[in-house]
Amino acid sequence: MASITDVSPLAPAAFPDLPVIDGVAFATAAAGVKYQGRTDVMLATLTAGTVVAGAFTRSSTRSASVLDCQAKLGKASSGTAAIVVNSGNSNAFTGKGGVESVEAITAATAQACGTLQERVFTSSTGVIGEPLPHARITAVLDTLSNTTSPAGIADAAKAIMTTDTFPKGASASVEIDGETVSIAGIAKGSGMIAPDMATMLVYIFTDALIGQDALQSLVSKSNAQTFNCITVDSDTSTSDSLIVAATGASGVNVEGQDAFADALHGVMLDLAHQVVRDGEGATKFVEVIVTGAATDAEAKQHAMAIANSPLIKTAVAGEDPNWGRVVMAVGKSGATADRDRLSIRFGDVEVAKDGWRSADYSEDAAAAHMKGTDIVIGVDIGIGSGTATVWTCDLTHGYISINADYRS
Amino acid sequence: MASITDVSPLAPAAFPDLPVIDGVAFATAAAGVKYQGRTDVMLATLTAGTVVAGAFTRSSTRSASVLDCQAKLGKASSGTAAIVVNSGNSNAFTGKGGVESVEAITAATAQACGTLQERVFTSSTGVIGEPLPHARITAVLDTLSNTTSPAGIADAAKAIMTTDTFPKGASASVEIDGETVSIAGIAKGSGMIAPDMATMLVYIFTDALIGQDALQSLVSKSNAQTFNCITVDSDTSTSDSLIVAATGASGVNVEGQDAFADALHGVMLDLAHQVVRDGEGATKFVEVIVTGAATDAEAKQHAMAIANSPLIKTAVAGEDPNWGRVVMAVGKSGATADRDRLSIRFGDVEVAKDGWRSADYSEDAAAAHMKGTDIVIGVDIGIGSGTATVWTCDLTHGYISINADYRS
Repeated sequence: MASITDVSPLAPAAFPDLPVIDGVAFATAAAGVKYQGRTDVMLATLTAGTVVAGAFTRSSTRSASVLDCQAKLGKASSGTAAIVVNSGNSNAFTGKGGVESVEAITAATAQACGTLQERVFTSSTGVIGEPLPHARITAVLDTLSNTTSPAGIADAAKAIMTTDTFPKGASASVEIDGETVSIAGIAKGSGMIAPDMATMLVYIFTDALIGQDALQSLVSKSNAQTFNCITVDSDTSTSDSLIVAATGASGVNVEGQDAFADALHGVMLDLAHQVVRDGEGATKFVEVIVTGAATDAEAKQHAMAIANSPLIKTAVAGEDPNWGRVVMAVGKSGATADRDRLSIRFGDVEVAKDGWRSADYSEDAAAAHMKGTDIVIGVDIGIGSGTATVWTCDLTHGYISINADYRS
Repeated sequence: MASITDVSPLAPAAFPDLPVIDGVAFATAAAGVKYQGRTDVMLATLTAGTVVAGAFTRSSTRSASVLDCQAKLGKASSGTAAIVVNSGNSNAFTGKGGVESVEAITAATAQACGTLQERVFTSSTGVIGEPLPHARITAVLDTLSNTTSPAGIADAAKAIMTTDTFPKGASASVEIDGETVSIAGIAKGSGMIAPDMATMLVYIFTDALIGQDALQSLVSKSNAQTFNCITVDSDTSTSDSLIVAATGASGVNVEGQDAFADALHGVMLDLAHQVVRDGEGATKFVEVIVTGAATDAEAKQHAMAIANSPLIKTAVAGEDPNWGRVVMAVGKSGATADRDRLSIRFGDVEVAKDGWRSADYSEDAAAAHMKGTDIVIGVDIGIGSGTATVWTCDLTHGYISINADYRS
């Protein structure tokens, strides 16, 4: 069995080279919030006029910092902005003390950076229910604000990790009217990952020029098909946050530009997949594709029932093409299905068609697909044109080891 | 780690002494449907006039035998009746062949027992999607019908087991107007256990005299609070069936008798708890009690979110009083909650009150409760009077071992 400190076998070979985004600078510090001997606070400063959009957990027990971000996103404000994030303590379910911590951190960041407090966005990730020792964070803010670097994004990705086994980054660049627009993003998250919303923490930066409404619209639309379509264990964090900041420094107006929308979507999907690939204990990356459902929403309901089924996730871990469990999951999903029209495939191997095992089904071929690290489960419901694709990982002894012992 | 052939550590010390129910007789056989060297078919014959009620999985991919039972329960018919059950193959997702198997088995049972085919109820449990070799079952029916015994219920409980580590039985007797009415039931099930419905297979027999409508009403009501309130892994079988047969042989009319309703409820709850105690890999029995929700339905939504959370179930396995994960589950449930009114206890130890850790919280006391085998997680939502209680088990390496390797 893999040690819980090993890097996920599904991790990319290396952290990618991310482009510098004009108008953004990063700094990190080891504030000792909980962890020792590593960085645990990151500051991102954003140039005047930066437009900020976002998406957040819908948990009814969401943290004070999430509520604060949500309130600020709605406000029309300009000037410089800042994002400050700590790992090790989520400041969730910490009562009035939690609200006071958010106030203290955002006020100190505003002062250190010369930014309006209503333009300071903060997130916290880590243990729930412990008071956040925010004085350890405010104590390092002056140092942070004096040491920011446009090239610091890789260090920022490391500072926000908790149980992550690798830092997560992705980027894209797009040519519009002969000018280049760049996008770079980082994410953290590996457990407590599920829709509504699936992130944990994601920060994406671009030098594109775009209005807040237009950016928020792109973020919300892509979020529904990326971070809200991944699940590790069906559990939902109290702190999940996605923030996208557009500095406008490129001078290139991207509103209505499909190329920019596609590039942003691609960065979000890449980061979402990396979160799944770092799923606690994961040894397989699983894509669930549902077609032929009554509606897209029902297709997603089927797909999520499959992706969250412990019996399917353990079968994948065991490299067992156990399609009977897929039938079970479709049946329990609550969405419409007709047993006698259902077809199922593992990879390119059709295992069941029209309600029964395929005439030419090869258990060996299906088993061969299951031995890979990237598994595809395809289900055609056979009754309509609704489709959905979601991503998950297998459920292994590693997940049990991490979560039965670690106080997250 | 326990071997998967070990008996659950939560099993009762022994199979209970079940009373003989006048009008019911049992026989079992080793038909070799799939398993070798053990019984795998059981026949229960029911005296003329026996009233039959039931409840079944709501899966949209439910098996042919479930559909057949559901169609027959609605019919007014009398005469003798029979129940025939095989383990090793669920006859689910087997297309037209599955329907033909049900027809063949019920026809052969009717002939062997001298019973109308519309009074023969059959169930199958085991692997999904493999053709049921029903000729192996019909081949033993004459022998079965010639060897029935009123005392054979314990053997019947063994014949219907699949991954169960112990046979499950429960009984009650109740005095009404100086006469005794007896109830005896058996159940099988350990994996793929979740609401809608949670059983797998349950057969309960009584010599009470009661009409079909009245019996069905009692069964449906108690089912909602027993088998539909347990979950092992949130997965739902395609075959779950509960059948309750009242022979009337005692001559005691129990309609409107609360004592009988309570006794039947008690037998159903006992069997439901035994199914959880045999949850795959279970080492802890967990009772989740939610109070103060907006409605009873919302209380159950919170309770099931807690009971199905992999992060909570692994924390229980690790004997970790990780109440932050309970906050998380309440937040994700979709039911109404107010973070600042939430209170949580483990056993009698209050860990959180009004939205934050209790002032006098003792981690040692909470940890001591978690070391037991019977765990209570109490949550008061603090906003209304809705209540619900559900039962589950922990999520362990044993569950992974069983399900990553076993083709169920």
